[in-house]
Amino acid sequence: MKLGEIGEFGLISRLTREAKNPDVVVGIGDDAAVVQDGDGYMLYTTDMLVEGDHFRMDWATPEQIGRKAMASNISDIAAMGGIAEFALVSIALTDNMDVETVEGIYSGMHQVADRHGVEIIGGDTTHGRIMVLNLVVTGKADERTLSLRSEAKVGDYIFVTGPLGGSRAGLELLLKGLKEPEGPIKKHLDPGCRMDISREIAPLANAIIDVSDGLASEVGHICERSGVGAVVEKERIPLDEETIEAGRIAGKDPYGFALNGGEDFELVFTVSPGNLEDAKRFGTVVGRIIEKDKGIHLVDSDGKITSLKGGYDHFRNKD
Amino acid sequence: MKLGEIGEFGLISRLTREAKNPDVVVGIGDDAAVVQDGDGYMLYTTDMLVEGDHFRMDWATPEQIGRKAMASNISDIAAMGGIAEFALVSIALTDNMDVETVEGIYSGMHQVADRHGVEIIGGDTTHGRIMVLNLVVTGKADERTLSLRSEAKVGDYIFVTGPLGGSRAGLELLLKGLKEPEGPIKKHLDPGCRMDISREIAPLANAIIDVSDGLASEVGHICERSGVGAVVEKERIPLDEETIEAGRIAGKDPYGFALNGGEDFELVFTVSPGNLEDAKRFGTVVGRIIEKDKGIHLVDSDGKITSLKGGYDHFRNKD
Repeated sequence: MKLGEIGEFGLISRLTREAKNPDVVVGIGDDAAVVQDGDGYMLYTTDMLVEGDHFRMDWATPEQIGRKAMASNISDIAAMGGIAEFALVSIALTDNMDVETVEGIYSGMHQVADRHGVEIIGGDTTHGRIMVLNLVVTGKADERTLSLRSEAKVGDYIFVTGPLGGSRAGLELLLKGLKEPEGPIKKHLDPGCRMDISREIAPLANAIIDVSDGLASEVGHICERSGVGAVVEKERIPLDEETIEAGRIAGKDPYGFALNGGEDFELVFTVSPGNLEDAKRFGTVVGRIIEKDKGIHLVDSDGKITSLKGGYDHFRNKD
Repeated sequence: MKLGEIGEFGLISRLTREAKNPDVVVGIGDDAAVVQDGDGYMLYTTDMLVEGDHFRMDWATPEQIGRKAMASNISDIAAMGGIAEFALVSIALTDNMDVETVEGIYSGMHQVADRHGVEIIGGDTTHGRIMVLNLVVTGKADERTLSLRSEAKVGDYIFVTGPLGGSRAGLELLLKGLKEPEGPIKKHLDPGCRMDISREIAPLANAIIDVSDGLASEVGHICERSGVGAVVEKERIPLDEETIEAGRIAGKDPYGFALNGGEDFELVFTVSPGNLEDAKRFGTVVGRIIEKDKGIHLVDSDGKITSLKGGYDHFRNKD
């Protein structure tokens, strides 16, 4: 059977086994693994970035590649309500690479790591026919802040912490050989993460996930893990001006970038109605959690209802 | 500057910074990173395996690739005197791969993980132009068992836990298209690790390292980190019969396989003279630790002394 037939998440579910160690609170299936550690929790997340698939050396500077790799991993810890602590970096380097390029990648990783108090404590340096970067970031959370995908409740409001689709908009521009508008290109090559507010969101939120694969995918993950449904109002999804402009240039719907693009590294979180007002400091409401049997829908301003599905799949999306 | 000019270890030293977090006992530079955790220590190790460089799908079965990846990481935890606990697996898969191949790799990883009480708690599944596998294994150690490369003392005996060079001998046979003798080929494609005895060695040993890059490289690491010298007696290095035969077939010195080949995943450890007799249950003496200014030497049975250097360098060795 070919990978494209079952897709990335079909494969993951085939590879996942029930944890035997009782300390494993959450294994595969959330932004990070969660292990009981005394009164608190240890968090572990990992991301592999492959040249050609995840970055291009002709688009991004070495520092940008390093910063994005570190930010995307710290984003996963933020999405658990955790504090990031340590990083392990594996890197496969090609024959024609300069030492200065590698130092630039590390410099970028250190810039973001330093900003978030993360220490690179180890790694592996090896050779490959293409460049590959793998990061692991560990973190800590406590009972008050730990936020799983699986804890959304019927009636929750669904928030996003900022404009979406910018990263995909930037990629569309780069694929057309364009260098403007700059905003989306920067969002694609050099995204941040929301550790700045995640620790304040966590005590208010029931479920949190970061936008790695697009809003449709992330809402789908929350619904699947929480056993709920959702309705998202399309025109409530925040888009910035330059993302809309990139949509015009590319002849594509910018809401599609937000729903299916990914790599925005904003947070999607759900809160109970009682926390609605407090949560508005940290984001915008885009929808509600509903009962599972009502499904997962996207509603547009004309009242048209479509099934909310999509998101980036590494074995099915090839652009 | 090209990577080949400074080599793998030259690069690592350029990328390494002083740890700022006081909980980091050992960062980059040992088999695993060591972080203080209450009265004990957390251990973190990682290895990246790239298709073509570290494994070939036409030589190894998916199960073998998975077993070797897991064994080599658990070996690093064994070399710290630790118990392995959790694993994170990142994998980049190519378009033409079958689901069954991926399941075979995971099955192999689970076989070795189960043997050592290790739980795979997370990972990343993505796409790449070549297959890449990255594992992180975490572990625990306590004051009594923690064994660093940096603790060898002048006068220590240098032990190895078993025959060396088998993995490289197997690679030489495979490169010639041979399938016999089977022993070295199995050692190359499907090595074990010495977690079976490492916990008994640890309280006796001053320094421990595992054989990833060859005895010459490992003794060199111990000397560099401990600020000592060493003398290794060539003919005391244990070789098994089939490794010697592979040397005959390949027209190469089998001691060269032991010194510079690597991937044997036996342990090299040093013990004070007072522990010499106890340690003999776990291995063979191959040399002594001497003062730093006396250098690092290999002595053969004719009394000829040569500088002990070498080992596998991913940016300099290309065979």
